[in-house]
Amino acid sequence: MSLEASARLSSSAFLTACRGERPDHVPVWFMRQAGRSLPEYLKIREGTNMLDSCFQTEMVVEITLQPVRRHQVDAAIFFSDIVVPLKAIGVDLDIVPGTGPVVAEPIRSAAQLDQLRDLESDDVASVLAAVSALTDELGPTPLIGFAGAPFTLASYLVEGGPSKDHRRTKQLMYSDPELWHALLGRMARIAGQFLRLQVEAGASAVQLFDSWAGTLSRADYLTYVQPHSAAVLDSVADLGVPRIHFGVGTGEILGAMSDAGADVVGVDWRVPLDEAVRRLGPDAIVQGNLDPTTLFAPTEVVHARAAEIIAQGAAARGHIFNLGHGVLPATDPDTLTRLVDFVHQQPVPARS
Amino acid sequence: MSLEASARLSSSAFLTACRGERPDHVPVWFMRQAGRSLPEYLKIREGTNMLDSCFQTEMVVEITLQPVRRHQVDAAIFFSDIVVPLKAIGVDLDIVPGTGPVVAEPIRSAAQLDQLRDLESDDVASVLAAVSALTDELGPTPLIGFAGAPFTLASYLVEGGPSKDHRRTKQLMYSDPELWHALLGRMARIAGQFLRLQVEAGASAVQLFDSWAGTLSRADYLTYVQPHSAAVLDSVADLGVPRIHFGVGTGEILGAMSDAGADVVGVDWRVPLDEAVRRLGPDAIVQGNLDPTTLFAPTEVVHARAAEIIAQGAAARGHIFNLGHGVLPATDPDTLTRLVDFVHQQPVPARS
Repeated sequence: MSLEASARLSSSAFLTACRGERPDHVPVWFMRQAGRSLPEYLKIREGTNMLDSCFQTEMVVEITLQPVRRHQVDAAIFFSDIVVPLKAIGVDLDIVPGTGPVVAEPIRSAAQLDQLRDLESDDVASVLAAVSALTDELGPTPLIGFAGAPFTLASYLVEGGPSKDHRRTKQLMYSDPELWHALLGRMARIAGQFLRLQVEAGASAVQLFDSWAGTLSRADYLTYVQPHSAAVLDSVADLGVPRIHFGVGTGEILGAMSDAGADVVGVDWRVPLDEAVRRLGPDAIVQGNLDPTTLFAPTEVVHARAAEIIAQGAAARGHIFNLGHGVLPATDPDTLTRLVDFVHQQPVPARS
Repeated sequence: MSLEASARLSSSAFLTACRGERPDHVPVWFMRQAGRSLPEYLKIREGTNMLDSCFQTEMVVEITLQPVRRHQVDAAIFFSDIVVPLKAIGVDLDIVPGTGPVVAEPIRSAAQLDQLRDLESDDVASVLAAVSALTDELGPTPLIGFAGAPFTLASYLVEGGPSKDHRRTKQLMYSDPELWHALLGRMARIAGQFLRLQVEAGASAVQLFDSWAGTLSRADYLTYVQPHSAAVLDSVADLGVPRIHFGVGTGEILGAMSDAGADVVGVDWRVPLDEAVRRLGPDAIVQGNLDPTTLFAPTEVVHARAAEIIAQGAAARGHIFNLGHGVLPATDPDTLTRLVDFVHQQPVPARS
């Protein structure tokens, strides 16, 4: 990248807000923006299963670019799935439509940990090629790399698939803390390695998703999870890219997630952003937090909510507009485009 | 009931704690204690579907008594399902094993509201006969009546079944507030009538379940839901029985749920009880809140957690021990029995 291109990237609204500096407009992107809400996504995915598509360089590039072209969002998020690094090191798993990740042999014993080897760049060569190509294609638009956090990754491995109550995961956590910490330590290494490789290939920010952390009490989160999430975030600390950390239903553990080493904390829609800042402290930089179901309301309701969120975000040192969870597949893409327009038209509020 | 029997009931540990007075032991019962974790339940249910079983007097009596006999819990909860009053007024719905309540024609228009008529005692005669018989059988052990709260009931009617994101429910709420409030008003009347009938038949406390209220922000809860939950609780205010109000993931709306008119607030495991009391105020009476997955841990872990919860509950004016959500079907019933023993052996803590 030329020096000029690099400077334009660095001064993008998204990266500016991530640094806690004042951007020229409120930056906005959407979790799961690259996905099923877009007809062009459904078309390109036809006949290719989810996991295969995550390893096909051209498809990753195209799917990642689609929402940027369509909505003019301020950041791209690399199209992938949180189980990709596990698949890449040879764990026998698949993503079953309508179900989610399914692991052939759930991991519940120390003997099984050996298969969870370190992730090397060759394991994800096609993925990193996509990151690299995307960085070129996107120019001044930042690319966000991502990985699943240790607790969420472990929960898929232990349950063998999605779970409503994470019973087996917590059973292992409560019953065999030694095996638990060994497993989460493995997950942390792999997630950290995956993020590092993405940044080295050109990603200019990372988001660590702990989808299920909100099912834990704060005490359990601190004991069993936070040290491992901290290890992941620490493993990319020297690379100088903003580290976003997000989970759903995390009102009780926002501070603990921030303390794990997040530069930006993603907040779901249950906690207003000004309340999140009260919990996180005045230096907080936050991302969020429109309830994704709001996108099915009339435009004036969507935009009124968005304006409220921008106003509440003024309590933070920085605010990146986003949903409070991923885009729902049934969302009308035009609603997203209009929302980006609306957010971009709002003045950046003075800090409240 | 004789005067002596009535006095023994009134001085039960459960009702004493519900009044904010000091019981002789920490009372304990479990949400979904009457259900699939018990082999005697699975046996009696063989060949009868869920909704039918809720309308068979003898079966309701037997299933309700099973956990009381087995675990020596301090209260019985009437075996039923939150959709029972809707079925009773003629809504075409069923409970599908492995799925949950499924409504034949989801309600999304004003024209459909007419079918949601008032609930009369004849509609639930077999159910009320069970309540009445249970009151006699249980003697000094209180029977808790229950109903689903307006938001949760409405969500089943609008979605047509269980939903992960409550998208259609919230869509209606945001898009057509008039229809929304009319629908929730109907739900509130029916839930209130159902609770009232149960108390008149002999129930000595009620629990209003708002299973899904935790998916709402506090602002939305206050605008769209709280007035209707308040109407339900108000409709039994004159009957002098404790009103418990519970939902999952409600950390942000605990105060708002209490303000709806709850005498006792059920708390899930994400919010420690002493923190719940900070949010609710020093006069709070709380119920909860062991993570149901903890019951899969070794006994010493279960009991250590229970002891912590009893200690945290001492911050409240009253504490009824319970789980933070319903008993999971795979739970070993002996674990529950041992837990009741353990709780009963603990000294009632001095208020902290």
